[in-house]
Amino acid sequence: MDKTSVSIVNVTSYTGLELLRLLAQHPQFTLESVTARSAVGKRLGEVFPQLLSRPHATTGTQAKIDPELVIEEESAQTDLAFVCLPHAAAANAVVSLLERGTKVVDLSADFRLRDADIYEEWYKHIHPVPALLETAVYGLCERYREDIAGASLVANPGCYATAAILGLLPAFAAGIITSDVIIDAKSGVSGSGRGLTLGTHYAEVNEDVSAYSLSGHRHLPEITQELTAGAMAGNHPVDSPLRITFIPHLMPMTRGILATSYAELKTNAAQPVKTTADVRSIYAEYYANEPFVHVVDQPPHTKWAYGSNDCFIYPTVDTRTNRFMVISCLDNLVKGAAGQAIQNANRLFGLAETTGLAAIATYP
Amino acid sequence: MDKTSVSIVNVTSYTGLELLRLLAQHPQFTLESVTARSAVGKRLGEVFPQLLSRPHATTGTQAKIDPELVIEEESAQTDLAFVCLPHAAAANAVVSLLERGTKVVDLSADFRLRDADIYEEWYKHIHPVPALLETAVYGLCERYREDIAGASLVANPGCYATAAILGLLPAFAAGIITSDVIIDAKSGVSGSGRGLTLGTHYAEVNEDVSAYSLSGHRHLPEITQELTAGAMAGNHPVDSPLRITFIPHLMPMTRGILATSYAELKTNAAQPVKTTADVRSIYAEYYANEPFVHVVDQPPHTKWAYGSNDCFIYPTVDTRTNRFMVISCLDNLVKGAAGQAIQNANRLFGLAETTGLAAIATYP
Amino acid sequence: MDKTSVSIVNVTSYTGLELLRLLAQHPQFTLESVTARSAVGKRLGEVFPQLLSRPHATTGTQAKIDPELVIEEESAQTDLAFVCLPHAAAANAVVSLLERGTKVVDLSADFRLRDADIYEEWYKHIHPVPALLETAVYGLCERYREDIAGASLVANPGCYATAAILGLLPAFAAGIITSDVIIDAKSGVSGSGRGLTLGTHYAEVNEDVSAYSLSGHRHLPEITQELTAGAMAGNHPVDSPLRITFIPHLMPMTRGILATSYAELKTNAAQPVKTTADVRSIYAEYYANEPFVHVVDQPPHTKWAYGSNDCFIYPTVDTRTNRFMVISCLDNLVKGAAGQAIQNANRLFGLAETTGLAAIATYP
Amino acid sequence: MDKTSVSIVNVTSYTGLELLRLLAQHPQFTLESVTARSAVGKRLGEVFPQLLSRPHATTGTQAKIDPELVIEEESAQTDLAFVCLPHAAAANAVVSLLERGTKVVDLSADFRLRDADIYEEWYKHIHPVPALLETAVYGLCERYREDIAGASLVANPGCYATAAILGLLPAFAAGIITSDVIIDAKSGVSGSGRGLTLGTHYAEVNEDVSAYSLSGHRHLPEITQELTAGAMAGNHPVDSPLRITFIPHLMPMTRGILATSYAELKTNAAQPVKTTADVRSIYAEYYANEPFVHVVDQPPHTKWAYGSNDCFIYPTVDTRTNRFMVISCLDNLVKGAAGQAIQNANRLFGLAETTGLAAIATYP
Repeated sequence: MDKTSVSIVNVTSYTGLELLRLLAQHPQFTLESVTARSAVGKRLGEVFPQLLSRPHATTGTQAKIDPELVIEEESAQTDLAFVCLPHAAAANAVVSLLERGTKVVDLSADFRLRDADIYEEWYKHIHPVPALLETAVYGLCERYREDIAGASLVANPGCYATAAILGLLPAFAAGIITSDVIIDAKSGVSGSGRGLTLGTHYAEVNEDVSAYSLSGHRHLPEITQELTAGAMAGNHPVDSPLRITFIPHLMPMTRGILATSYAELKTNAAQPVKTTADVRSIYAEYYANEPFVHVVDQPPHTKWAYGSNDCFIYPTVDTRTNRFMVISCLDNLVKGAAGQAIQNANRLFGLAETTGLAAIATYP
Repeated sequence: MDKTSVSIVNVTSYTGLELLRLLAQHPQFTLESVTARSAVGKRLGEVFPQLLSRPHATTGTQAKIDPELVIEEESAQTDLAFVCLPHAAAANAVVSLLERGTKVVDLSADFRLRDADIYEEWYKHIHPVPALLETAVYGLCERYREDIAGASLVANPGCYATAAILGLLPAFAAGIITSDVIIDAKSGVSGSGRGLTLGTHYAEVNEDVSAYSLSGHRHLPEITQELTAGAMAGNHPVDSPLRITFIPHLMPMTRGILATSYAELKTNAAQPVKTTADVRSIYAEYYANEPFVHVVDQPPHTKWAYGSNDCFIYPTVDTRTNRFMVISCLDNLVKGAAGQAIQNANRLFGLAETTGLAAIATYP
Repeated sequence: MDKTSVSIVNVTSYTGLELLRLLAQHPQFTLESVTARSAVGKRLGEVFPQLLSRPHATTGTQAKIDPELVIEEESAQTDLAFVCLPHAAAANAVVSLLERGTKVVDLSADFRLRDADIYEEWYKHIHPVPALLETAVYGLCERYREDIAGASLVANPGCYATAAILGLLPAFAAGIITSDVIIDAKSGVSGSGRGLTLGTHYAEVNEDVSAYSLSGHRHLPEITQELTAGAMAGNHPVDSPLRITFIPHLMPMTRGILATSYAELKTNAAQPVKTTADVRSIYAEYYANEPFVHVVDQPPHTKWAYGSNDCFIYPTVDTRTNRFMVISCLDNLVKGAAGQAIQNANRLFGLAETTGLAAIATYP
Repeated sequence: MDKTSVSIVNVTSYTGLELLRLLAQHPQFTLESVTARSAVGKRLGEVFPQLLSRPHATTGTQAKIDPELVIEEESAQTDLAFVCLPHAAAANAVVSLLERGTKVVDLSADFRLRDADIYEEWYKHIHPVPALLETAVYGLCERYREDIAGASLVANPGCYATAAILGLLPAFAAGIITSDVIIDAKSGVSGSGRGLTLGTHYAEVNEDVSAYSLSGHRHLPEITQELTAGAMAGNHPVDSPLRITFIPHLMPMTRGILATSYAELKTNAAQPVKTTADVRSIYAEYYANEPFVHVVDQPPHTKWAYGSNDCFIYPTVDTRTNRFMVISCLDNLVKGAAGQAIQNANRLFGLAETTGLAAIATYP
């Protein structure tokens, strides 16, 4: 089988770097081109010295990432491109790539929302190519597996959004909870990217926890859109618009997202769901065939997914209040970004979704 | 003014050690006796080598903690005792101390709950001295300042409970929220104590976040009791029993608790509270004269209180959902334990509450 | 090609767990048996919940570690065994395994030292099977590649020893430094194992650095033995016994070892080596064909090897003092333990050394 | 006694912030003026929200740092100024301050070196006021206590320099070691300051250890100068110029420096020193009257000095090699910067050195 040629646009981001790591393990994708405005002309190995790691291997499995690859301003023609640019910049790059026949997994937010007005409201600029919003597929394989297979452009979900949506989808699809939801999310620092701010200075973050984006985090409209759609897909459309409060918190760690979601069980249903066993059964069935989503029987740890493409989900009912709770966690750079991007790319090229993604967590 | 003699029972706990640190700064309390079953006969400086820190000072302010102090099995007679034993063991020690005329600040859970039945339900054993529950005062100066002044036994609040109660009290006292509350709390590892478990092994906790005690954390009944009482004290008794879901999470850091609480604003009030400005005004007024509780205008960081007796509170209204949220944070070993204990002890002996507690946070 | 069946003895150790992670990626080794005294009868997935991570994969690369595998008291018959027991216990297990024809990679210290007297001096008990010391091969492929290929028992080097020896070998082989060496080493906490001690409690280690084993760390005789042998092998036998001071330090991190070694350049050589360029050239040549050892041109970071089998080495000459310095770093659980064990096992079974070890570091 | 008015120049640095914290505890120094180019016109409480911490205290010990203090471009006239500017900028500010009669503790490197040529060699610019180098006193009270008392300008030592010099001074003063010294030092990230670089990004530093400044760190000439002088003062002048290799390492923690120093015991002395007991006795005597320097009998931990002005020193002899080793540690922001600055200021104004510095470490 011929290999698929791949480019990474803006490789110097943390998501770009994580793609390098994962592509090094992928049997079908071959990295041929990388770009990054700030590092044009440098070799990959200069920017990321750890990539020197297998220069001399003359036998056995070779590292597939060439540290001598030179960073370009514009990517070469490849079959597939991963776009790791910030929003707005990403949309323009995506248009060019699609025009020349490259399939694209866009890791930015530019094609996640179906509605250009909502995009404008949250991202504060007019969407440059709203027509593309119709053809882009939201890259959550657990929901849009079939659509992705035939797509040209996949909008890779946000890291918080992935954790929250996977955590709440089965409950909405089964129609067991009302539209009132609270999502209290906790993330490691790498989710903030590689840029320099006082808020990511080691001495400020270490031994500290804080909430942020209380006036509204941009992953919220994405979560609302997909949970509403998921309820509809499960034949349990929401009675009223979802009323979600989503508060992210910054944790003193590099990787990992844990979302603790709270909702009310519907009490007026024909067959009301009441117990932890009930909800666990619904979740287990919903994700029965998923390779990366695991319904577990104890509260999961972000570290269980360190470096892997897994998502662990623990649904439960608080017996004192009959409130529904679900904890979901993943590695924000893997299932929350680069790993999910490769999972999507596997679908785009007819490969098994798990191709190149078999690694289990690095623990401890 | 004569100094007050002090003993610490079970000094080898983290709360015991933190009391040592804070007492070293206190102008009126003099440590005369320390106990710890596991270290009887050792000198304090053997167990905590950092206490050697000022042996030779011949001038200026001297360290008041003597590293040569020998750890005993039973404490000597002192005016005041801080009891740092686990629950159940604490109650018995408290009885003995009170009988010989020592005033006690008990840092365990044994005297926090008014109702012996609730104690038995949560702590799984029969309360040994239920009569004492009536005379013990819950040691939250912000609520029971006057009662504490005349007490013999103060039940120092739990660390999570302090953060949650201080965060929600003004809203209940003002009657602006309904009885449905979610408290998502995050704590550093020192809250788990100095005991050895796989769950506090560095390699397990580092780079990890997880929820725990999902079937019910023992600080919940304390929170429920005090918020119910606080609503009553504010002339806004709750219509129905509080329905609180409280989920603690373990953070990869040593100190700090941050509680993010979510509730619904009452819409049927005569003068409904609607905006962040409204709630902030209520909170600012409630805590106007408090030396340690600070209503702030941005989401607070646990690190702002690292090593200090402060509690930072940020109340707000989520404009999209009109939901009420309040974030409160503190150092679990200071305002959540030893600092609050000294604040209580200051009241017991007629000192200004801030005596010995003036230090600001160690930041970064 | 038939798969090789593998067992792990004492799988609940951190090295055992790391072997699980690496074996999950290995194309030729199939895990068939695991033991652990403390967890007999439990399933692997109970002890390590993250191993649930790929239960449902019906397509693509499957996880090769079965979470349903039951932990036994004694391992089943397999072609290969990795022994992760503490010293002394390991030797007995190794004897049994060899007797039934199983090849063994022993991760303990029991077969690393050639001299039973030195073993007794450092490990404080008489070696149970000194005869085996003659047939065991020290498992440093960079030195004993050919011997390992024909061996039955490989003594996997210590984590500190691997870093120190790889860092200093080329200098001794080339005869450019004298016998006076100082090795200042820094290690993450996972090197201390999964046992519970106050010294590995999160609250004690976090924000702390300290030196330990100042009266002599057990990796020292191993380092001395191998550097002496390496000098001999390079035809530059040491003039006098090596005089090594080796001081390990505990770092507030989970993984990683960095060894900073200091020595004096010989000044009386025929062609004295004087500059950083000189020493870098010697090192580059020495490791020219090594897949995992990388001579780099800037001080390396332990994080460059996080989760990978790489070792980064930076030799230099301090221009002010003409002193030789070399910094070497690796992941203590991979190249310092489980990764190196698999590298050795690959040799034992005629596979390319890099088989199953192609992953690059998880960064950041 | 009248209070001493104090200003902090460049208060937004970490050393400036630490001075705020320590001055809040000081009974004689009153902060009256703060400057910072980047924050002119802001209130202190805006830049450091934790300083809000005691606004309402109406009783007891009040916080002495006013969060309403406005940051100025130029400091007001005060009795004393702490200068926290980078080198070069500091020298100019110091000249102005001295001219108007303000006593100065300069935390920069500008007045630490006696020799303007060495300054130029290391700092790459010509010293603007070399004449002042003669009147400035090196602010190590343990050495220059008397000189500081009569000075106008104190050059506060570097953080690494303080740890290394205090660790090695007694050995040089007693003439027991040769001129060959290796100092392997480990520091937390706050030592790099509050500026933004990729090297202090949380995701880069966390779980990482690395060496830096291998071509020469600027604290080296300071160490050399003071150890040479210390040997002379002890009547054991060094035979040959000191030959020191000093390698700093960055640790994944916020505060703390630990220096591990290695040297050779002189064997040709009249009464050769040979044992750990010998060197410990020499050290204990040297520091017998020091309030902040503690000779301890086990390897110290940086955390023992977290937030305190202490320095812990552990001298020992490696019995296998007869090599001398000494470990010294402190908090880089306290004894390594702001705490030592206050210790010096106490001397400048005739106060006991320990005034305002009595706090013991915040542990854990």
